[in-house]
Amino acid sequence: MERRLALGIDFGSLSGRAMLVDLATGAEAGLVVCPYQHGFIEDVLPASGAKLPPDWTLQDPADYLAVLAAVPDLLTQARADASEVVGVGIDFTASTVLPVRADGTPLSFLPAFRTHPHAYVKVWKHHAAQMYANRINELARSRGETFLSRYGGRVSSEWLLPKLMQILEEAPEVYAAMDRLVEATDWIVQQLTGQEKRSSCAAGYKALWNKREGYPAPGFFGELDGRLADVVTTKLSPHVFPVGSRAGTITAAAASLTGLLPGTPVAVGNVDAHVTFPAAGLTRPGQLLMILGTSTCHLLLGEEEKAIPGICGAVEDGILPGYWGYEAGQPCVGDLFDWFVHTQVPPSYHEEAANRACSIHQVLREKAMRLGPGESGLVALDWWNGNRSVLADADLSGLLLGMTLTTRPEAIYRALIEATAFGSRLIVGQFEAGGLPVHDIHACGGIAARDPFLMQIYADVLGRPIRVSANRQAAALGSALYGAVAAGPGRGGFPDIEAAVNSVPQVPGTVYEPDLSHRGVYEQLFACYSQLHDWFGRGGHDIMKRLKALRLEASLP
Amino acid sequence: MERRLALGIDFGSLSGRAMLVDLATGAEAGLVVCPYQHGFIEDVLPASGAKLPPDWTLQDPADYLAVLAAVPDLLTQARADASEVVGVGIDFTASTVLPVRADGTPLSFLPAFRTHPHAYVKVWKHHAAQMYANRINELARSRGETFLSRYGGRVSSEWLLPKLMQILEEAPEVYAAMDRLVEATDWIVQQLTGQEKRSSCAAGYKALWNKREGYPAPGFFGELDGRLADVVTTKLSPHVFPVGSRAGTITAAAASLTGLLPGTPVAVGNVDAHVTFPAAGLTRPGQLLMILGTSTCHLLLGEEEKAIPGICGAVEDGILPGYWGYEAGQPCVGDLFDWFVHTQVPPSYHEEAANRACSIHQVLREKAMRLGPGESGLVALDWWNGNRSVLADADLSGLLLGMTLTTRPEAIYRALIEATAFGSRLIVGQFEAGGLPVHDIHACGGIAARDPFLMQIYADVLGRPIRVSANRQAAALGSALYGAVAAGPGRGGFPDIEAAVNSVPQVPGTVYEPDLSHRGVYEQLFACYSQLHDWFGRGGHDIMKRLKALRLEASLP
Repeated sequence: MERRLALGIDFGSLSGRAMLVDLATGAEAGLVVCPYQHGFIEDVLPASGAKLPPDWTLQDPADYLAVLAAVPDLLTQARADASEVVGVGIDFTASTVLPVRADGTPLSFLPAFRTHPHAYVKVWKHHAAQMYANRINELARSRGETFLSRYGGRVSSEWLLPKLMQILEEAPEVYAAMDRLVEATDWIVQQLTGQEKRSSCAAGYKALWNKREGYPAPGFFGELDGRLADVVTTKLSPHVFPVGSRAGTITAAAASLTGLLPGTPVAVGNVDAHVTFPAAGLTRPGQLLMILGTSTCHLLLGEEEKAIPGICGAVEDGILPGYWGYEAGQPCVGDLFDWFVHTQVPPSYHEEAANRACSIHQVLREKAMRLGPGESGLVALDWWNGNRSVLADADLSGLLLGMTLTTRPEAIYRALIEATAFGSRLIVGQFEAGGLPVHDIHACGGIAARDPFLMQIYADVLGRPIRVSANRQAAALGSALYGAVAAGPGRGGFPDIEAAVNSVPQVPGTVYEPDLSHRGVYEQLFACYSQLHDWFGRGGHDIMKRLKALRLEASLP
Repeated sequence: MERRLALGIDFGSLSGRAMLVDLATGAEAGLVVCPYQHGFIEDVLPASGAKLPPDWTLQDPADYLAVLAAVPDLLTQARADASEVVGVGIDFTASTVLPVRADGTPLSFLPAFRTHPHAYVKVWKHHAAQMYANRINELARSRGETFLSRYGGRVSSEWLLPKLMQILEEAPEVYAAMDRLVEATDWIVQQLTGQEKRSSCAAGYKALWNKREGYPAPGFFGELDGRLADVVTTKLSPHVFPVGSRAGTITAAAASLTGLLPGTPVAVGNVDAHVTFPAAGLTRPGQLLMILGTSTCHLLLGEEEKAIPGICGAVEDGILPGYWGYEAGQPCVGDLFDWFVHTQVPPSYHEEAANRACSIHQVLREKAMRLGPGESGLVALDWWNGNRSVLADADLSGLLLGMTLTTRPEAIYRALIEATAFGSRLIVGQFEAGGLPVHDIHACGGIAARDPFLMQIYADVLGRPIRVSANRQAAALGSALYGAVAAGPGRGGFPDIEAAVNSVPQVPGTVYEPDLSHRGVYEQLFACYSQLHDWFGRGGHDIMKRLKALRLEASLP
């Protein structure tokens, strides 16, 4: 019997991963990983040798096409015939945007713009558009724009509109020459299908679009800058398609690049974090997914719109079609532990790691494990990179309390882990207090997969079981499922994502059950955390902001 | 013309230093340093090989006699004739106490007690008498004893009475056999003069004695333990002599040990911290001396008694005769910086120190120096070892606030230094608010001598010049001056300590002037520190205590 395969392509920050999934078993049938040749372009533009300003992060879209060009190898590796591939889904980092011509040609491919930095992809972590984000926020607040409430009260400099304004202001010739500024996820879909089909997920979470209200009104854009009054029709697209729908099918040109058959269905594009939701087997309201990595993203499915203060995105059809997708987050999780091991751990610990050929995290983890809850004597506020949810305040900073002369590095390491767990508990509480019940909690991402010590602390602190997805390529799996949905039941796929999730066998993951004997101590520690959280985040005290202002003044020349 | 020399002997924690001072020039005429052969006896009693319990710290008084026995070498080294020595003064750590017979023989010298740990010297840092200190405090509070107010509201486990109670409870046979429990400073004076002359400084700061009220009343002692009702007359001595007076003269036996002439005057004993006050050239009310080392001791001379909350000792004749001596302190200064470099500094910094053959402190100092005030973005509460003044609360703990992912170790190092400076500023403010004006500020001690970076921060934070004494052997110099006062003007000395200080040329030290351009920023940082200080120390919030209680519970088996 012929296999039914779906192809998922996950475009991450530094590489693309194309994976074939056997829809009968849910198993991986093949995987290729393609590092982007140019990685992040942050110092010098390769085409010209010109130095880039601070906070710039570009990519070359040719590197993305190289991932598509690796699909024939994947088919060979999986001994798959192209006819076995029922559909294709893709996901991408976001907001990762590039200026293109109407036919989808990136401006950076044109000789006239080959050496122009603004013609390239601006990656999600390009942070040079902060001043435009500030202007957007000020204007939106002064006009009382209702869209702000869906984004926890502030537009991030990482999103599409600040990046578009940066092009308009700093490179009007690029702005004039571009027919579209597109999310890379939509651009890949266009490369495969020849059609511009903007994704509801990317547009909703990154471009201020809403299913009922659309983009912000022309009056808002016009007041922001007269040249932007018609930006939606001239540079974006008023047409946005829900995730889970079919964008089109593989064109002849895409077929020759990928080895797929012309006519193979392709799903509307997705965002890498959000596509892991169905990959973890989740389809129902009340399911919360924590994606634990450098930062943590919390995704929750709801049946209705709720205005929940401090939740950074509420998008209809944003995670799964037919539901409201809520996103919250902690901007500093893995980054916090890395900061600690790089700047705060003495030589003897590093020597132990070297002698045992294990990571410094492992050494700290084992020592921290020997401490019981409360034994560190410490509590921290995990705001080293500000607070995204539920305070939505980037100017907050870290706090550590309780040190004595006997405090060891592993005690601080443990306190930092606990602080991020307390932060997640507050977010879960905020969802529930806002009328969105959280029925069960799931986790995926690098930290969830490799740090059982941390996961156990999270289960203890949250006081509930946490189910960790077994799939290490969750994003590519999720995209493959969307590919199968794009195919539809008539072509070997599924009618909708829920059916896809329920039909494809899930590999059982690990379940972390809360240790009830730790409950009492963690309740007390969480009370300390909450009290500090409210004092410093909500108390009308401005010590953290005063320190940031003093720091800024002091660092001026 | 014959030189007039004075001999000062400073008994420190791990060594004794005997110094001859030329009274005409103030210059050092000779110095011998004698490390104690047995150092701290903390693990095993050498005489028996028996293991000591936790928190015990003993010394062998024979090691102190070895210092006296080095005086002949000192005379030889200085090419001095014993007739040139006009007087002798000594100082000692305190409360460092030993049980002796009426003739001054230490019990540990007697064969019957040679292997008995309680027969040895209990050093100031012997911390095994905490439970007796607790009993004293509880009883004193319940009886409303007025002496408590002179000690910031609590008796320390380091002082004489808790150590005496430990002997009574744990070794009644030693208690019965001892005719006296004496401060080591008084014991040395007895060795030299054959007379028991208890020092007003040691008795006042360490044994609850007061010039007007004497020791606590027999009723208090009796309620503490019936066997203690007559403790003052049977084990201490009701007779206490002011510092600056003559205790006696060198006996024939002492002459043969030290090479000094019989009849050479000897001053009443002193405490090492307090004797540095005149050594720094200080004799007037309103002069504040900070002795900066592992911890910081603040000494201030006042003309009258003031009850100042949180000041740990107010003793008439305690620092200089004729004045009230006030003592305050921070229990964690050099210790805090050492904790930081040992547990919180990454390998690359240690490698830099090794490559440059300098201390890790120097590496951090140089990096921290490149930051302006406020540029760290941090503020700390320096309570890693609790707070002695002005909160007098050992259960408080450390706090660090303002961290971001770009916070470097040198920024934290600088914030810790600044926190100790803010703590000193609060103490100065407390003195002044209590009606004791602080006219000028002086510093001595290891940190003051070797860390100009820290001293400049202190001057900037305090907003006043700080004068650092040039003399590295300040304690021995101070004792020598007291020796010259014991001699009196008729025998080549001085009528009083003020005359001695004014007659002996002072080596000019370094003056740190506040940098006025830093004033504004430090005012703002101090406001942050003060706000945190009051929230966590006085706000009725008990987070630090809750964490300590949780830690204690968690560490129980």
